[in-house]
Formats: sequence, structure tokens, C-alpha cells
Amino acid sequence: MMAQAVSNIRRPRARKTGPLRREEDMSAQARIDGVPIGAPSLDIIMARLAAIVGDRASAAPGVRADHGRSEAYHAARPPDVVVFPETTAEVQAIVNLCRELDLPLVPFGAGTSLEGNAAALHGGVCLDMGRMNQMLEIHAEDMDVRVQPGITRKQLNAQLRDTGLFFPIDPGADASIGGMTSTRASGTMAVRYGTMKDNVLALEVVLADGRAIRTARRAKKSAAGYDLTRLFVGAEGTLGVITEITLKLHPQPEAISSAVCAFPDLKAAVDTAIGVIQSGVPVARIELLDAVMMRGMNLHSRLGLPEVPHLFFEFHGSSAYVTEQAETAQAIAADNGGQGFQWAVTPEERTRLWHARDNTLYAGLALRPGAKAMITDVCVPISRLADCLVDTAADLVECGLVAPVVGHVGDGNFHLLVLIDPQDPEELARAKAFNERLVRRAIALDGTCTGEHGIGMGKMDFLALELGEAVDAMRLLKGALDPHGILNPGKIFKPHPPTQGSAP
Amino acid sequence: MMAQAVSNIRRPRARKTGPLRREEDMSAQARIDGVPIGAPSLDIIMARLAAIVGDRASAAPGVRADHGRSEAYHAARPPDVVVFPETTAEVQAIVNLCRELDLPLVPFGAGTSLEGNAAALHGGVCLDMGRMNQMLEIHAEDMDVRVQPGITRKQLNAQLRDTGLFFPIDPGADASIGGMTSTRASGTMAVRYGTMKDNVLALEVVLADGRAIRTARRAKKSAAGYDLTRLFVGAEGTLGVITEITLKLHPQPEAISSAVCAFPDLKAAVDTAIGVIQSGVPVARIELLDAVMMRGMNLHSRLGLPEVPHLFFEFHGSSAYVTEQAETAQAIAADNGGQGFQWAVTPEERTRLWHARDNTLYAGLALRPGAKAMITDVCVPISRLADCLVDTAADLVECGLVAPVVGHVGDGNFHLLVLIDPQDPEELARAKAFNERLVRRAIALDGTCTGEHGIGMGKMDFLALELGEAVDAMRLLKGALDPHGILNPGKIFKPHPPTQGSAP
Repeated sequence: MMAQAVSNIRRPRARKTGPLRREEDMSAQARIDGVPIGAPSLDIIMARLAAIVGDRASAAPGVRADHGRSEAYHAARPPDVVVFPETTAEVQAIVNLCRELDLPLVPFGAGTSLEGNAAALHGGVCLDMGRMNQMLEIHAEDMDVRVQPGITRKQLNAQLRDTGLFFPIDPGADASIGGMTSTRASGTMAVRYGTMKDNVLALEVVLADGRAIRTARRAKKSAAGYDLTRLFVGAEGTLGVITEITLKLHPQPEAISSAVCAFPDLKAAVDTAIGVIQSGVPVARIELLDAVMMRGMNLHSRLGLPEVPHLFFEFHGSSAYVTEQAETAQAIAADNGGQGFQWAVTPEERTRLWHARDNTLYAGLALRPGAKAMITDVCVPISRLADCLVDTAADLVECGLVAPVVGHVGDGNFHLLVLIDPQDPEELARAKAFNERLVRRAIALDGTCTGEHGIGMGKMDFLALELGEAVDAMRLLKGALDPHGILNPGKIFKPHPPTQGSAP
Repeated sequence: MMAQAVSNIRRPRARKTGPLRREEDMSAQARIDGVPIGAPSLDIIMARLAAIVGDRASAAPGVRADHGRSEAYHAARPPDVVVFPETTAEVQAIVNLCRELDLPLVPFGAGTSLEGNAAALHGGVCLDMGRMNQMLEIHAEDMDVRVQPGITRKQLNAQLRDTGLFFPIDPGADASIGGMTSTRASGTMAVRYGTMKDNVLALEVVLADGRAIRTARRAKKSAAGYDLTRLFVGAEGTLGVITEITLKLHPQPEAISSAVCAFPDLKAAVDTAIGVIQSGVPVARIELLDAVMMRGMNLHSRLGLPEVPHLFFEFHGSSAYVTEQAETAQAIAADNGGQGFQWAVTPEERTRLWHARDNTLYAGLALRPGAKAMITDVCVPISRLADCLVDTAADLVECGLVAPVVGHVGDGNFHLLVLIDPQDPEELARAKAFNERLVRRAIALDGTCTGEHGIGMGKMDFLALELGEAVDAMRLLKGALDPHGILNPGKIFKPHPPTQGSAP
């Protein structure tokens, strides 16, 4: 390999002068073996990485490109180098190297995140956790499992099949458990089983100073000190690199049944969802799909359902209890004008239904071949959901965008897949303006700009709008745990002082 | 009031030189109106407090004493002054005053904590939140409520009675919601409804710099930045002062039934609990009481039950589902030798049963009138629980202590009420040594030294034993959010560098 200088491997000046960098640390930066450098050459970096991981580091353009793009609309931001660690000790050595060389370090899971969460905004080293994908230890009696971060949720559930247990969090994509932890993922079953914050018992994390810590032991609950586990869940790799995750598991339900129900309008569907939740029925999934999305799903998955708003339900429990839950839900749906409550009882029918649901991204894209989707992610208190949806539908008509809706309606979280040509600057700008109005609408209703996708690079401006000076507290935590700012820099918030509550 | 100097109002030298204090801040300390002082006189402090809260501040010995003692065995540690704020703005002004005068500030709820969590170890100002006890806003459709921290759980549930909703976390004592939040409390219903970390949606917190932040909005879930909510839950007032709490509520169950069942030994009872949890029955409570505790309960509550290990059950749900759950549990109990499954179906019977359970502290003390209880709090993975209990029972016999057991067995959390004469140094030392062996046993089984009481002043030495270098990460967070170390100093961990994994 040529001893070329790597222009983007040094982070831009803006990051270096941010408050996350302490002046007294500057003298310790940018040295190799004690010799100060300007921009370390790629050769030096590769040689240092080879000493840690052998040939499991690559600067090949194809590998870099694979780690810079996502399924979202964001422009690709490839790293300079991709490294594939296999052990926590290797991760520690890589973190130490990046700190020494002042290189950005971006942890990377399955690449399914939607807000550019793992984009290498400042170049540097991408830490692909894909080879750390083992299930390390299962405790069936305690219903927990310890895994490496690179295992995907489908791989995990395949390995759990014979234990009588399963891991319920289902964000649609076959994401890695590490990525799901880092973005505080949730998805269709969160209404029953909670989000990642509720299903991670403990973590092993490599801190920016190279030490590996364990955030908690395996007890089901603890009041021992600060909740470090939940601090790293959702931190998007900006506070440490997650190297092990202990997850709660749940008993595979004795019986499962699913159903679909058509509604005359969105409000009737939302009122049904509110009624079901308030009735105390522990519905396992309750998904809203609007008429436009149903058209896309008919196109993509040949569902053959009427193109009006629908709820998809799933119920888990004993046979008798599943029947009781479903009858309660059906009665509430009927009270709200729901029609044609159709059951999917066999595993094949259920699989077809939820496979179609998991593929709503492609169903949406089927409505406009060649488009990309800007996927919105607001979440509001459920009492405000109908208002938020109706106002948003009117806004869509006004601004002339096509955007099918799919929602985790039991949690008040919904996505619009705003179909755009990302090469068309006017359309992109129009979509961004629409999303900003949506976020402001959600926040005005006491909601959040992101229910489950995280802030990444896409929603940084909205965070201060949502949480005001609380973002300063986050900055203080970042400065304490990553004083050199090497961990996934440029994500969640900008390092400069906050624009308190100002417009994004 | 005389212009007396207050000897203990300045914190001891050891705290001032700890790493939580930054040298560059020293010059800003200990000044009033720009004039440096040695130890501010009580008169000056009272005058400054009066300017904020009028006559709602007291240095009367009785008031101080009331805020220094607890139900636990720890020696009383009264504050110098007790102040009773009524608004967030007053709390902000008090925090600013304490920072200016370098005074410790200790938030105080109902005084029911068990590890000296609100003891004024270094004197200073006790912030009694009892006058901030309002329910501010209820959203029945969203099943959430915003309250002030001083409201107790019983006050809250009394106000919720007509809404069809309730707040399930029940630590036994009528604790304040702020205190329960700060200690990450849980109790008998955590097995079904989770702990405080699972039931707090958002907080308003006054930071050490005097700013009030809101940690989250009211959406049921969010992936917007670091999980500040859960950072303050369980921080025991060391990172900020909680001034508002938004809680999740739950539907009042349509039907409730309770039952008691006797077992031949502890292991049979624990195996029943494991079986019930694994069966997927969402048991609302499942409490273990050993033979010694049953004797105490018969003495104190005249339960008239056989003095052998028992499980107390409660089931919530629809009538049909409650019956199904109870039948499943009864069958599992019978498989494990459980006898005399007795139902408490009427509200009166249930109340009598759970009132007796809530009063196990007094039941334990009834076994040795005049004694105090050192209440242990380990929590282990449920598969290790029988081993931990059996070994602990043998240890008790060996060291000659009397200690009835009550356990949240579905979570692997159990308490021994070690009955001691706190005036007898030998007995106190013997009890402390027993507790240390218990904690080491629990940690060796991958458990925690505290399931729900917190670290406070009583378990600081165990925290490093349990979490090793993770405690350093906690110290970094404390330093970032409370650089002057004014908030509940001397709790959770000692400010000096950790003794990594060393013996307590």
C-alpha cells in the first residue's frame, strides 16, 4: 500500500475546538511513539492496526463504501479504515490506538440504522462488530442470555428456538443486538415487552480510556449506584464501545394469534388502539397502516386487503387468554367502526402477515420505484396521536409529498416513509421542511422527535428543541467519559454550546 | 438566634480534597457577597434562606433530629438546617446558595430509606420536599401523571382511586415518590410492574449549577439522546434535586386474588417461584417468608399460619385470567410439596394479608422487643436463590444471629432483618460481618449487594466489590454534574480513587 497522506483522517478543526476537547489534552494528541504528527499516514495506521488484528483491517474502497452507506436518504459517509475485531481485548487496543492517534472511532453493527447513526462523518476507523457475533452463555432458568454485539436478532432467536425462550424486540430489520442497544431500538413488540432499555440487564463496555467495565451483574434488578447500563443504551456509541450484552428473555408464548381489521379512518383506528391499551389487554403488537401503505403492501406483498386504514394485532399467552384478549380487542374495534376482523391463526398466515409488516420499507418504495425514503419517527402521547396524524395528513396534501404511514400505535410512535428522489435538491428540501414541521408538531404535543431510530446525524438540531438545556447535561456526560471526543464524533449533539430551544 | 459559629457546617477536609472538587473552583468557594469566610455562621445561612423561603427554614434541634434519624440501624446524622421549599424556583435558589456557601445539600423525602441515604453525613442543609406534594396533572388516556416529589405513594393512589388507574410500586413503607425515584425502589409488585426505573417517564431536575432541566417529554418511549431520566433514577440525590416526576400508571385490575401456601422447606418455595415465573404467569406479587418471619407475623399480626416457609401470591387481570393464573400457580406449588393453598378473595382478607406483609419490619422486631433491624438487601439470579438462602441460613446458625427472611422471590431479591442491639458493639460487628459474607456470597453468584434500598452510606464499600472499575465511570459522571460536590456528599461512593475490587 502506498504511503499516502489521508486527508480526511484528521478531523476538521471545528471538532477539535469544541468543548469536548480539553486544552490541556492537546499536547498529548497526534503523536506516534512520542513524535508529533500532522496527519498520520494510512500506512502507519494500517501497520498499527495489523499489530492488533492481523489482516482483519481494510482500507479497500468497496469495504469502506459498504460501511458508509445506509438504507436511509442520508449521503454516504465512508470511514477511512474498517477493522473487524474478534475480542474485547482487540477492541481495547483499537480504542487506545485511536486515542493515541486522535482518530475518530465509529462502532458499526448490521448497517440498518436510519439516521446515519454509524456514518463516519469525520472519517477515521469503523469498528465492524460483525465477527463478534457469538451467543456466549444462556441461563434458561433465569431467562437471560449473554451475547456479543454483532449477533443479529434473527440469529439469536434461531439459537434460542429449543430453549422455550425468545428475544422479543423486533425493529423490522435484522439488526445487530449491539446496534439495537446503541440506538435504544424498539419496534412492533415494544408495546408488550418494552424497548431495549427494558431488556438489557448488563453491558460490557470499553471506555474511551481503554478500560473494559461491566455495568451491572446478572440480578434481575439492582439499586447499586448510577444506572450505567441505561446510560450506554441509546448512546449511539458516543460514550463507549459495547462489547457484550446480557439480555432478558421471555417465555415463548403457548399460543399466538394475529388479526387484521379495517377502519373507516385513522381516528377510528387510533381510538381502538387507545381502548385496547386502556382495557389492560397486554397486546403483543398493534400496528397501524394507513391507506397509502396498504396500497404499497398490496403491491409488494400481494396482501389483497382493502386500501383503507388497518390495524394489525398480535396476542400472546395461554390459549384461553389469547382468545379472551382477541375478543376484547375485537369488541373495541367494532365499537369504533372496525370491519372484517380477520384471523391469522396458522403459523403460515401469521408469518405472511408480519413478513409483510416487516417489509413496509420496501412496500413504501414500491409506490415510487427508484425513490429513497426519508423515514420520520415521532412519538407522542397516545391521546394526541389522532390529532398528530390528521394534521400531518393535511400537511402532506398541502406540500405535495407521498408518504405512507406505519405506526407502533400502542406506543404513540409512527413513521412516514416520505418518498423522495435524493438527487432532487428541491424535493429533498421540501421533505426536510415537512419533517421539521412534523417534529415541531410532535414536540408541541409533548412528544419526541425520535421514538426509536435515535438522533444520529439526522436529528441533532431537533434534540435541543425537544429537551432544551438538558442537552447541556448530555454534553457534560460526554466530556466526562470521552474527553478527547474520539467516539462516534459529530453524533447526537454538536459539540458547541447549545442553541437553547432555538429553531433547527 | 445567637450568631454562633457552626462547627460541622463546613465539610471535613477529607471531602474537600477529594477528586470531585476542582482546584480551580476553590477560589470561588466560601464567599458571601464576595467576602471570603471560614465557616459561615448559622445566622448568615438562616438569613439567606429566609430571603428565599421566609419562615420555612429551621435549625431547631427537634426538626434537625427528625431529619437525621431513620428506621435503620445507622447512627443519626442530623443536618444543620432543614428547609421546606414549595416551588422549583425555591429549590433552584437554595441550590445556588449552597453552591455559593459550599454547603452540603441533602434532599429528604419521607425518611423511610434504609441505608442512611438521606443522612447528613457532613451536616449542611436538608431539603425536606414534604411541602411539594401535589399531583400536578393527570392524563388518564395516556395513563401517566405528573407529581411533585413529596407526595407519598399512598397519597397518590388515594387521589387516583376514581380514575381507574393506579401506581403499583409498593416498597412496603409509605415512601415519597421522590425518595422512591432517587433510590430506584421496587418492592412487592416489581415482579409484574417493574421498578421505579421502569415507571418513571420523565423528570424535572435542578442541577448543581442551579438550572432546572426536563429529562424527557411525555411520549411513552424515546430514543432522543442519553437517558438522563434513568441516570437520575437511583442517583440518591447526588447528581441533582428531583422537583417533578412523570410516572406511568396502570389500569386497576378488573379482578385480584391472593393466596398463601406453606412449603416444607425454602428450596421447595423457591422452586415454585421459578416455575411460576417460567410458566409465563404474570404474577403480581410472589413473596417468600421463612419460618422465623412467620413466627414474627403471627406475633405481630395474629395471622395464625403454620410457622414454616410460605409464599404469598397475588394475581391481577380479568376474572377468568386471574383464575387461570392461580390454577397454574397452585399446580406448580403442589408439584413442589406446597400445602394448604388458601385463598384470600374478599378485599378485607387481601388487605389483612398484605398489611401483614407490609409490616414485616415490625413483625421481625416483635421477635426481639427493643432491637433494631439491620436489613440486608441482596438480589441474585433466581436460579441461584435457593443456594444463596440455604448457605445464608447455615451462616446465621453458625454466627448465632436471629434474622427473619422476607423476599421478593420472583426477582431473586430477599431481605434478612438481622435483629441487633445497636448499643452492643460486639453484636453490631457480628451482624456487619454476617452481612459482608452475605454480600460476597451474592456477588459470587452474579448478584448485587442491593436490589432496592440503594447504596447510601451503608453499602459504599460493597459497590466497588460488585462493579469494580465501573465505579470510576460513576465518579466521572458525578464530577461532571456536581463538580463542587455539594449534592448529598459522601453517598454511593467515596470521592477518593477506587480500591478496585478490594475487600470492603
